Amino acid sequence: MIDLRSDTVTKPTKRMREAAFDAEVGDDVYGEDPTVNKLEALAADMLGKEAAMFVTSGTQGNQIAVLTHCKPGDEVLLEENAHLFLYEGASMSALAGVQPRTIRGEKGAMSPVDVAAAIRPEDIHFPETGLICIENTHNKAGGAVVPLENMKMIADVARDNGIPVHLDGARLFNAVVASGVSVKDFAAQADTVQFCLSKGLGAPVGSILAGSADFIARARKWRKRLGGGLRQAGIIAAPGIVALTEMVDRLAEDHELAKVLARGLGEFRGLEIENDVDTNIVLVNVKQAGYTSEAFLAKLKEHKILAVPFGPHTVRFVTNLNVTADDIDHVLNEMRYIV
Amino acid sequence: MIDLRSDTVTKPTKRMREAAFDAEVGDDVYGEDPTVNKLEALAADMLGKEAAMFVTSGTQGNQIAVLTHCKPGDEVLLEENAHLFLYEGASMSALAGVQPRTIRGEKGAMSPVDVAAAIRPEDIHFPETGLICIENTHNKAGGAVVPLENMKMIADVARDNGIPVHLDGARLFNAVVASGVSVKDFAAQADTVQFCLSKGLGAPVGSILAGSADFIARARKWRKRLGGGLRQAGIIAAPGIVALTEMVDRLAEDHELAKVLARGLGEFRGLEIENDVDTNIVLVNVKQAGYTSEAFLAKLKEHKILAVPFGPHTVRFVTNLNVTADDIDHVLNEMRYIV
Amino acid sequence: MIDLRSDTVTKPTKRMREAAFDAEVGDDVYGEDPTVNKLEALAADMLGKEAAMFVTSGTQGNQIAVLTHCKPGDEVLLEENAHLFLYEGASMSALAGVQPRTIRGEKGAMSPVDVAAAIRPEDIHFPETGLICIENTHNKAGGAVVPLENMKMIADVARDNGIPVHLDGARLFNAVVASGVSVKDFAAQADTVQFCLSKGLGAPVGSILAGSADFIARARKWRKRLGGGLRQAGIIAAPGIVALTEMVDRLAEDHELAKVLARGLGEFRGLEIENDVDTNIVLVNVKQAGYTSEAFLAKLKEHKILAVPFGPHTVRFVTNLNVTADDIDHVLNEMRYIV
Amino acid sequence: MIDLRSDTVTKPTKRMREAAFDAEVGDDVYGEDPTVNKLEALAADMLGKEAAMFVTSGTQGNQIAVLTHCKPGDEVLLEENAHLFLYEGASMSALAGVQPRTIRGEKGAMSPVDVAAAIRPEDIHFPETGLICIENTHNKAGGAVVPLENMKMIADVARDNGIPVHLDGARLFNAVVASGVSVKDFAAQADTVQFCLSKGLGAPVGSILAGSADFIARARKWRKRLGGGLRQAGIIAAPGIVALTEMVDRLAEDHELAKVLARGLGEFRGLEIENDVDTNIVLVNVKQAGYTSEAFLAKLKEHKILAVPFGPHTVRFVTNLNVTADDIDHVLNEMRYIV
Repeated sequence: MIDLRSDTVTKPTKRMREAAFDAEVGDDVYGEDPTVNKLEALAADMLGKEAAMFVTSGTQGNQIAVLTHCKPGDEVLLEENAHLFLYEGASMSALAGVQPRTIRGEKGAMSPVDVAAAIRPEDIHFPETGLICIENTHNKAGGAVVPLENMKMIADVARDNGIPVHLDGARLFNAVVASGVSVKDFAAQADTVQFCLSKGLGAPVGSILAGSADFIARARKWRKRLGGGLRQAGIIAAPGIVALTEMVDRLAEDHELAKVLARGLGEFRGLEIENDVDTNIVLVNVKQAGYTSEAFLAKLKEHKILAVPFGPHTVRFVTNLNVTADDIDHVLNEMRYIV
Repeated sequence: MIDLRSDTVTKPTKRMREAAFDAEVGDDVYGEDPTVNKLEALAADMLGKEAAMFVTSGTQGNQIAVLTHCKPGDEVLLEENAHLFLYEGASMSALAGVQPRTIRGEKGAMSPVDVAAAIRPEDIHFPETGLICIENTHNKAGGAVVPLENMKMIADVARDNGIPVHLDGARLFNAVVASGVSVKDFAAQADTVQFCLSKGLGAPVGSILAGSADFIARARKWRKRLGGGLRQAGIIAAPGIVALTEMVDRLAEDHELAKVLARGLGEFRGLEIENDVDTNIVLVNVKQAGYTSEAFLAKLKEHKILAVPFGPHTVRFVTNLNVTADDIDHVLNEMRYIV
Repeated sequence: MIDLRSDTVTKPTKRMREAAFDAEVGDDVYGEDPTVNKLEALAADMLGKEAAMFVTSGTQGNQIAVLTHCKPGDEVLLEENAHLFLYEGASMSALAGVQPRTIRGEKGAMSPVDVAAAIRPEDIHFPETGLICIENTHNKAGGAVVPLENMKMIADVARDNGIPVHLDGARLFNAVVASGVSVKDFAAQADTVQFCLSKGLGAPVGSILAGSADFIARARKWRKRLGGGLRQAGIIAAPGIVALTEMVDRLAEDHELAKVLARGLGEFRGLEIENDVDTNIVLVNVKQAGYTSEAFLAKLKEHKILAVPFGPHTVRFVTNLNVTADDIDHVLNEMRYIV
Repeated sequence: MIDLRSDTVTKPTKRMREAAFDAEVGDDVYGEDPTVNKLEALAADMLGKEAAMFVTSGTQGNQIAVLTHCKPGDEVLLEENAHLFLYEGASMSALAGVQPRTIRGEKGAMSPVDVAAAIRPEDIHFPETGLICIENTHNKAGGAVVPLENMKMIADVARDNGIPVHLDGARLFNAVVASGVSVKDFAAQADTVQFCLSKGLGAPVGSILAGSADFIARARKWRKRLGGGLRQAGIIAAPGIVALTEMVDRLAEDHELAKVLARGLGEFRGLEIENDVDTNIVLVNVKQAGYTSEAFLAKLKEHKILAVPFGPHTVRFVTNLNVTADDIDHVLNEMRYIV
């Protein structure tokens, strides 16, 4: 099987397994796991934030951010196809009691004007705007890089209104590698940042939530409440350190392969590439080829290729650590029998 | 002052005050207030529902509907300018833990196709779609009547997917009077209906939530939790009975005055009527007259006229029980000094 | 029927009905109901608090206090038989996401030592103690007056730990009349106070929540979220003013009748008075008479007397505005046929 | 340092690290991690339940149980010193909106009569009793084994009232080893069971939640909402399998050492053993020795011994995988310089 469903399917590398085997550990609920502490210090340093906290998933990092930033009855502004809105089980409402207010973006980027217009004035009928979330890269927009300039303008709007900004950077390092902007520059536009060790970076489990020291201290209690307080977590933090120190640059390979895949697929009549392929995601519209996305995926599966549906006629392919140039060739070859 | 801010500002009639004075009362927490019981039976009967419950406001009726229909982590589909989404303090998320998912409508009416497309399939990442809300008449769309046919199609989509429908009919009787459709026909398209006794119908306080007997039994506990379990509530239920039995037909007068007002205002250069004026609401865009809505309202106030802002350049006027044809003439006369 | 179930069953007096009839009203959501404003100012003044807010029930006042004082994940300390814990549908957890921690009291009064011991130190595993609630008079303890001295000591503990105090004074004026302590002195021991206009004071509907001006401003948004934002609420606020200005002193009559009732019942073999009868509540244990509380109540009903169960063998009688000395005589006479 | 603070501090064994290194993994969000699947099947089988789910902590397992069993506004019955009530940050209220109602137990065991009496009848004022929780072994009661017979009687009460039972078995295998009762027999008294792989069993991370297939299917969505949906979780599930298959019997050694420790400490004048030492926990009261628990712990630390406070004068020692007979000898020797 050539698995292009997601970069979450990546198997840990030998180096990661060795790191897990060798990890020095302790009880992280007591703050005594040296490997977790090292990972958190490393992550905070890379992002230019005071503190960071290891969490078990991007969803957990995002939800803890919302829980810590907001109070019940607040409103959260975010792009209408944001992961936090579409793919996290309405958690922000279920757990934090906040209402999402969505804004239609362009390639994943919200207009700062729209953001400003959506902020609520004080009125007995209105929730207070408690948080603005930005997703970069933006998954549903096909891994689009939200430009630094756009983030800066939204950060300005937020600052002017005294509203914090959270960056859902599940694939932030893809944005870094694709744009050449430093991760610190992206992170500086947000009060808090979540990024995943477990997607393109290849770690088996885990994400990071970073922010001010005070914020992270409060966030730790919410992590405990969600059951994210782990014991000898060094076993999974150790591969996370490998991910962060050794795997960032290689994201360029995923991006290159995604471009090759997109170019190749785009030459098939009936297949239309929907996105700009900034990073490692290719969105293919299969409608003209006479397929629904489900039918197309079934066909792909017969040819030992896996992808996921992203709309009635849209299929998402994600290049990743476990996919080679040969695999992409193979996919393009097989496509002749499908389209 | 000519008060066109809202139909909520209406003062109770003499008949209502007399009804309050004479009301036979009891402890409604024990179900023993005969006047409340009479109002609830009357309302259920008019709507064609098994049971009804007196609540202290439209917001309370809507929120109890959401709390009773949904479980935390559900998603609620509603029009993007619905009162439940814009004007109830994010209550549905704060209290019921549900996430609103908004759909852009046309004159307040959602396309059934859009509603169907927004219903979530089963997936570990997705909330379940727990409720579809329709608002009729639609306040933010300028008191627009949502056509019965549209409601029927949405009800069909809902039924096919096993999802309940709630009708926020704060101004349902305005829709009835304006469209000639019976209130039973509108109510039949929804599992539960909320309507206000306190807007165009003129009662001082209160709304009704109606539905199946089982639903209302469960809703009563949520009303108690919100502090809406009253004692000798007959004092305010009695004017509600007057509102329901004597005040419905007169909504036609409000509608007629709104049309007169809209026609008159539309003749002023610089004022643009934004809505169709189906009922008692007139939305006026004052941008071409060189005003922001706030500046225009300040000017109106100098001329002893009150209205409310409904956007940066939009002003809302609502005709109501306390406004006469002479008042409208006066408003149109004064407007010459303003525009 | 002689109705001794509760002081909530009291019918409004003629003076109250007249006040409702004559009430000057406005739209209270806009803060324009002069009668509501008058009641709120009067209540704040009487309690010695900066501000007060009219709410539709004691439960609503208490819940808004919890919602405004606390954040989700906080712990609230209160007596183990507090109304807030036993009789409000777990609302504080359902709406505010806080955990009650109960303390066994003596005649409704918690020991300040126990309160101090229950306050949580900072620890990643612990909730933060967000509020201490005192109930005075204490319903389940048989209308017991919590002594001012006890309240002062708890207030000291609270202040030392930076924790606010809420006084559930649903029957606070009974405590005032019975103890001779001024209402201001009781209220001074708490940051916020709720009391009911609708129990012994006889108003048909409503309670007051009082506190600092800032607190009440924030509380108003929570009231709106619960659907407690009313329109021409003067209709029910007016009887509330009568209750507050004319009915306080007469509570002494209820207390006197309760004592008469308790003395009389206590002479029947098999009936045991469980409480000290500080105010208007008499708790009678009927076990020795061979009754369960339900069987005893059924028997009472045959004799046209109503009371409520307060445990497997405990029955509660509450004297109130609608009960006369003759009624109590009648009850005692009938009792001969029951016991 | 001899670390007797908790059995959570145990370092994974070499066999566990090897298992992590060799683990076959996949994306568990897609249900494709073979090692996780193997662990879940193994755990379900051992407990005699239809299905099981890997979670990252005991707190997460407990909270997901509450979220899946209950609806907001429910009441949960549990022992007054239950971990779920004392040590989980008021999570059940913050996340699930339920109210704990605590019952004073004897050695961690609630009386079935008290449980039955605490179940709420239907009443508009009352929450519904949504869940009964039992903790076995009971941490705060000093690792006390709750007798099977007690659990059976509570299960009967629960069944008669249609209320589910959750077993917080964070240290369930300690109860099994100490009592000789099979884990299936304990588990059969509850609808759902949580136990930890990471305490005495020595795994670095993780717990199991088991129940019916339908329950676990619904629980998976709550796990996802809490951010507990992991990717290549086999890395930590593999040591969990070692824990479950190879480490259960050795708990007897911890229990034996705890008894040795308790006997030894009990001989020091001023130290009083508070619990029966059924399993691996020793509670020592240090008051007569002139210490507060904090002062005593500080003294211990000077002697390279770690324990935790469990009350103003109570100190908890927990024997575990990393503690040897020599360590216990050493502790008893050092104690001569302390007491």
